[in-house]
Amino acid sequence: MNFVSIIMGSKSDYEIMKHCADTFEKFNVNYEIIISSAHRSPVRTKNYIKEAEEKGAKVFIAAAGMAAHLAGALAATTTKPVLGVPMKGGAMDGMDAMLSTVQMPAGMPVGTVALGRSGAINAAYLAMQILAISDSELAVKLKEDRIVQAKKVETDSKEIEVIL
Amino acid sequence: MNFVSIIMGSKSDYEIMKHCADTFEKFNVNYEIIISSAHRSPVRTKNYIKEAEEKGAKVFIAAAGMAAHLAGALAATTTKPVLGVPMKGGAMDGMDAMLSTVQMPAGMPVGTVALGRSGAINAAYLAMQILAISDSELAVKLKEDRIVQAKKVETDSKEIEVIL
Amino acid sequence: MNFVSIIMGSKSDYEIMKHCADTFEKFNVNYEIIISSAHRSPVRTKNYIKEAEEKGAKVFIAAAGMAAHLAGALAATTTKPVLGVPMKGGAMDGMDAMLSTVQMPAGMPVGTVALGRSGAINAAYLAMQILAISDSELAVKLKEDRIVQAKKVETDSKEIEVIL
Amino acid sequence: MNFVSIIMGSKSDYEIMKHCADTFEKFNVNYEIIISSAHRSPVRTKNYIKEAEEKGAKVFIAAAGMAAHLAGALAATTTKPVLGVPMKGGAMDGMDAMLSTVQMPAGMPVGTVALGRSGAINAAYLAMQILAISDSELAVKLKEDRIVQAKKVETDSKEIEVIL
Amino acid sequence: MNFVSIIMGSKSDYEIMKHCADTFEKFNVNYEIIISSAHRSPVRTKNYIKEAEEKGAKVFIAAAGMAAHLAGALAATTTKPVLGVPMKGGAMDGMDAMLSTVQMPAGMPVGTVALGRSGAINAAYLAMQILAISDSELAVKLKEDRIVQAKKVETDSKEIEVIL
Amino acid sequence: MNFVSIIMGSKSDYEIMKHCADTFEKFNVNYEIIISSAHRSPVRTKNYIKEAEEKGAKVFIAAAGMAAHLAGALAATTTKPVLGVPMKGGAMDGMDAMLSTVQMPAGMPVGTVALGRSGAINAAYLAMQILAISDSELAVKLKEDRIVQAKKVETDSKEIEVIL
Amino acid sequence: MNFVSIIMGSKSDYEIMKHCADTFEKFNVNYEIIISSAHRSPVRTKNYIKEAEEKGAKVFIAAAGMAAHLAGALAATTTKPVLGVPMKGGAMDGMDAMLSTVQMPAGMPVGTVALGRSGAINAAYLAMQILAISDSELAVKLKEDRIVQAKKVETDSKEIEVIL
Amino acid sequence: MNFVSIIMGSKSDYEIMKHCADTFEKFNVNYEIIISSAHRSPVRTKNYIKEAEEKGAKVFIAAAGMAAHLAGALAATTTKPVLGVPMKGGAMDGMDAMLSTVQMPAGMPVGTVALGRSGAINAAYLAMQILAISDSELAVKLKEDRIVQAKKVETDSKEIEVIL
Repeated sequence: MNFVSIIMGSKSDYEIMKHCADTFEKFNVNYEIIISSAHRSPVRTKNYIKEAEEKGAKVFIAAAGMAAHLAGALAATTTKPVLGVPMKGGAMDGMDAMLSTVQMPAGMPVGTVALGRSGAINAAYLAMQILAISDSELAVKLKEDRIVQAKKVETDSKEIEVIL
Repeated sequence: MNFVSIIMGSKSDYEIMKHCADTFEKFNVNYEIIISSAHRSPVRTKNYIKEAEEKGAKVFIAAAGMAAHLAGALAATTTKPVLGVPMKGGAMDGMDAMLSTVQMPAGMPVGTVALGRSGAINAAYLAMQILAISDSELAVKLKEDRIVQAKKVETDSKEIEVIL
Repeated sequence: MNFVSIIMGSKSDYEIMKHCADTFEKFNVNYEIIISSAHRSPVRTKNYIKEAEEKGAKVFIAAAGMAAHLAGALAATTTKPVLGVPMKGGAMDGMDAMLSTVQMPAGMPVGTVALGRSGAINAAYLAMQILAISDSELAVKLKEDRIVQAKKVETDSKEIEVIL
Repeated sequence: MNFVSIIMGSKSDYEIMKHCADTFEKFNVNYEIIISSAHRSPVRTKNYIKEAEEKGAKVFIAAAGMAAHLAGALAATTTKPVLGVPMKGGAMDGMDAMLSTVQMPAGMPVGTVALGRSGAINAAYLAMQILAISDSELAVKLKEDRIVQAKKVETDSKEIEVIL
Repeated sequence: MNFVSIIMGSKSDYEIMKHCADTFEKFNVNYEIIISSAHRSPVRTKNYIKEAEEKGAKVFIAAAGMAAHLAGALAATTTKPVLGVPMKGGAMDGMDAMLSTVQMPAGMPVGTVALGRSGAINAAYLAMQILAISDSELAVKLKEDRIVQAKKVETDSKEIEVIL
Repeated sequence: MNFVSIIMGSKSDYEIMKHCADTFEKFNVNYEIIISSAHRSPVRTKNYIKEAEEKGAKVFIAAAGMAAHLAGALAATTTKPVLGVPMKGGAMDGMDAMLSTVQMPAGMPVGTVALGRSGAINAAYLAMQILAISDSELAVKLKEDRIVQAKKVETDSKEIEVIL
Repeated sequence: MNFVSIIMGSKSDYEIMKHCADTFEKFNVNYEIIISSAHRSPVRTKNYIKEAEEKGAKVFIAAAGMAAHLAGALAATTTKPVLGVPMKGGAMDGMDAMLSTVQMPAGMPVGTVALGRSGAINAAYLAMQILAISDSELAVKLKEDRIVQAKKVETDSKEIEVIL
Repeated sequence: MNFVSIIMGSKSDYEIMKHCADTFEKFNVNYEIIISSAHRSPVRTKNYIKEAEEKGAKVFIAAAGMAAHLAGALAATTTKPVLGVPMKGGAMDGMDAMLSTVQMPAGMPVGTVALGRSGAINAAYLAMQILAISDSELAVKLKEDRIVQAKKVETDSKEIEVIL
C-alpha cells in the first residue's frame, strides 16, 4: 500500500495541518498523520519513519514551527522525499520556521512549501504530484482539479466583477 | 525515457545551477538544462514544458532570482512536481527570490530548496529521491551516498579534531 | 473608450481593492475589475489582458498576495504600463508580496505601490496620472484634488491642534 | 517636446542611473538627467520640477538611497507620474530605500521599481510604456523589443543547454 | 517664549503622539502640536516651521508612518534639532517608518527614537534634555524624574517579587 | 544555598516570566524573581546582582524587551552565567529584543533562548542543566523529565492520529 | 567650556567615528573622543560621563555595533542629551546595532542617527544644532553650511547632467 | 576529567570556531573539538555525545550555519547544557542559523550566542562561567580577565583619544 506520512512537531500544528489531511481525503489518497517531535521524542520519530517506510510510505510531510528541525530530522533519516511545512507563531512572522526548514545543507533536501494553511494544502498537492508520476489515475485527477480551480476563479469573479 | 528538466531564468544562474547538473551526472541520471524566462520568453517556457513533459520529464527544477516567478509559472503549467531554487543577488540577501518561490497559493505547490549552491545540489537530490520511488537502482545509490556523506564528515574531522 | 483594468488574484483581495475602484468612481474614470489568477487561471488571465487591451485598456493594475506573480504575468503579456499592489497576510508582514511584485528583471517593469489599502488607492491615482498626460480635464481634477487633500490636513489638525 | 526627467539624489547614484539614461538613448527617447537632493537642495529640486514640467516633462524618475525621500518629494510637487528607483548601500541590503520609496500615503503615489541596476532600466521601460500610450511609434518599438528580449534568451540558452 | 513643536503627518498618529504632549504637560514645558503632511500639505508644513521658529520653537518633533518623510522634510527646512518618531502599521512591523526616518544622508540629521508610544514619550524627554542645557530648573526636574522612575521600578517589583 | 536569580526589566514581562518561575517550582529549585531595569534603576540592578551573588545565586536570568540591555548589563557585572530571554512587542516581531540580547561582544556572553513563553521556560531548563552539573539529584530529574516530555507527545498524538 | 563628548565601544569604530570628530573640527566645535565599553569597562564609562559632564559636556555621542548598549548606558547615567550611532558589521546589515540603540524604553531616550559613516557625521550635526540653540555664531555657521551643501549638489550635477 | 566538547557541522566552520578552541587554550581549560553533522552523520553525532558525556564532558558547544539543527540535535540527546554558535553565510546575513539555533521549543534549551567570531569566543566564555561555578580557580581567572579586558579598552583608547 502506497501512502503519504504526515508528522507534526506539536499538537498546536494540527489545526493547520488538518487542511493537509483533508486534501488527501478529497483526492482519496492514503495517508497517516501523527505527532512526533524532533527534540522531545527523537526515538519515536526515528522509529516511526522506519516503520512507515516499511509499510509503504512514499513521501513524508513534516510540519513544525520556531526552530523547525522536524523536516530536517526526517531528511537525515530517510532517502524518501521529505516536504516541509513551516508554521507561523514564532519569530519574524514565521521566518524562523521557514529558514529552519528550507536552508538545508547540500545532500539533505527538504522540499519546502508556503507558511501555514496554504503550505499545508500545497504539501498534500506536491506529495500527490509525486505519487502521480506512477499513478495515472491520480495524475488525471490532478489535471481535472486544475480545471476546477480555474472555474472557481471565474465563479468568484462573477460576484464582484465590473466589465465595461 | 525518464529525465529531470532544469530551467534557469537567466544566463547568470548557470554558474550556480551547474552544480545541479553535475549532481545528476554523478548519479548518472538523465536531465535537460535550458535557459528560459517566465517574463522575457513566456511562450518558449510554456512550449518547452509541454515538449519536455511529452518526452518524459518527470520532475521540473526552476532556478531564478529577484521576483522569481519561474517555478510558479511552471507549477501553473504542469501537474508534474516542480522544485524551485532561489538565487541570491537581488534584495535582502536573496529573500526576494526565496519568498517569490516558496509562498505559492494553495493548489499550486513549488517544493523550494535552499538559496544558491546548496539549493542547486538539493534540487537534484530531491528530484532523484522522487524518481527513486519507482527506480530501485537509484534508491540504492541514494542510500549509498548517505554512507559516503557520513564518511566525508569523519575524514574532514580527522584533519582538525582534538580528542582528549 | 479609454479605461483602466484591475485584476485581483483572489476574492480575498476585493475588500482592499474596492478602494481602488472607489477612487476611479470618485474621479469618474472608466475601469474594469475582475478576479483572475496567474497560477490558477493563467489562460483566462492572458485572454482577458488581450481583450481588455483591444477594448481600450490603457493601464493595468494587478493586486496579489504571497508569491505575488500576477503583476509580473501581466507585465510579460502586455507592453502597456502595469502597476502592482502587494497584499499583506502572507509572510513578513507582506514583504513576500512586495518583493515578488517589485523585484522584476530588467526590461519587464511593474510600477509597485504601497502595501494594502494605501497602495490600492495609489494604484488608482498613478493610473489616473498616466491617463492625465493626454487628458487635460483629468489633469485639472488631479490638481484640484491636491488642494482638497491639503485642506483635509488643515481640517483634521483643527480638531486636535494646540497653538501657543 | 515630450521628455522624461531623471533626478538623482547624489552623485554616487549616477553609476547605476546611467543604465536608465542609456535605455532612453537606445530607444531614442528624450530625457533630462540631473542631480538634486530632497534634503540638501530642496529649492533647486522644486524649481527644477516646475521648469521641467513646463518644458514638457511627462514622467519623472527619482533615484535615491537610504531614507530615499526624493521620489516622494517629487510626488508631492507634481501630479505627473513619478517613478522611484531605490538604491542599495544603506541598511538591510537596500530595504531602507525600497520602503522609503514605495510606502507612500494614499493620494501620493510613487511607482516603484526594483533595487539598483534592474530598477534603473525598468524605470526607463515603464516611462516609455507610459509615453507609448499616445506614441504609437514608441509602442511598436516596445513590442519589437520583447521579441529581441525573447531571442536573447534563446541565444543565451544555446551556449549552455543540454537537450536529450 | 521657548517651546517644542510637534508635527504629525496624519490624524491617526494623534492617539500615540498624545503621550508626547502629555509628557510636556507633566513637566510644564511649552509645546505646540499640529497635523501637517510632508506630501499632502508641503506648503503648510514649510510655512508652519518658519513661523514656529520665529515664535520660539527650539526643537521640532515629527511623527509619521510608512514612508515617513516628515522628519526629513523638517530637517531640510530648519537647522533646529529635529527628532523623529516612527509609527507602526505600515510594513515590516514599522520598519518602513523607522528606516525612512533614521537613514538620513550626511549633513541632515534626524534624531530618531523608538517606534510608537515609547518613542512618543522619548521624543518629549529628549527635547526636554535639549532645552535643559540652558534651563537649570528643567534640568533639576529631569534629574528628579530619574529618582521617580527608579522608585517606580521598586514599587512594581514589590507586587510580584520572590526573595529567598 | 544555591539558587537562580530572575530579573525582569519591566512589570509587563511578568506574565511571560511567570512560566520561568513556575518551571523552577515544578522542579523544586530555589529562585528569586525581581523587577529591575538596566536603564531606570541601574544602581538597584547592580546592587541586587552583588547581593544575590553573595547569597548564593549561581545563574542569572534576565528578561527584557525592545533594546533589551538587561542581560548585557548583568553580564558586565558578574562572571556567573547569564541567560537572556527576549520579549516580543517592540519591533520586527521581537527581533529588537533578540538581537539586543544575543549579539554581545567577545568576552561578555549572554546565553540567549527563544522569544517569549518558550524562552522563559527554556531559561529555567538551561539554568537547571547548569546546576545539575554538580547536583546529581537534579540531573536525574531532568533525565526523567525527558521521558515525560516524550510521553506527552505520544498522548497528544493519540487524540488526532490516523494510522493505516 | 562647552563641548561634545564622543564615546566609542571599540577601537574598530574609530575609522567611522573619525568622520564625526572631523565634522566638529571643520566647525571649530570642542569635542572629546575616547574608547570605553558599556560591557568591558563599565566603571570607566560611568566615571568618564560624570567627569565629562562636570567639565562641560553638553551632549554625548555613543557609537557601538552588535548589541549596541553603549548609548543606552549613557542615557541611564546622564540626563544630558545622548545621540547614538549604530555600526554595521554585526547581524542583518547593522540592524542589530540600530534596534539596540533606538528601541529605548519610555523615559530613557537615545536620539539615533543613520548607520555608519552618514550617522557619524549626522551625530556631529545634530549635536551642533543642539549647541546652536544658545550659540548664535554656531547657528549662523549651520545655516551657511546648508548653502554650501546645496551648492555642492549643483556642482556635482554639472559633471553629468543632460539638459534638453 | 571535566571538559567542554565543541562540535561543528562542517569543515568550513573551523576557521571561526578555532577562536573558541583558542579561548579554552588561553584559560587552560580542557576541550574536545570534532566535526559531526546533525544531518550527514547523525549516528556519529549521537554516539560522540554519549561517549563524550561518559568521558566527562560537562558542556557542549555546537556551531552550524544555514538551517542550523546541530545544537538542537545535541539538546535533544543530552541534558547537559548546550550552547549554540550560529554561522553567517546562509540567508539574511546569518539570521537563518541564528533563528534555527535559538528558537527551540519549551523544554529543550540551547543557550545561543552571537553570530560568527564573537559568538565562537563567547561560547567558550559562557562554558567556562558554567564550569567556574564549581571550579574556584577558573572563577578567579574569569574575574581577572575582566580587569584585562577593561585595561585593553584603556590602552586602545590611548592611541586615538582626544581629551580637552
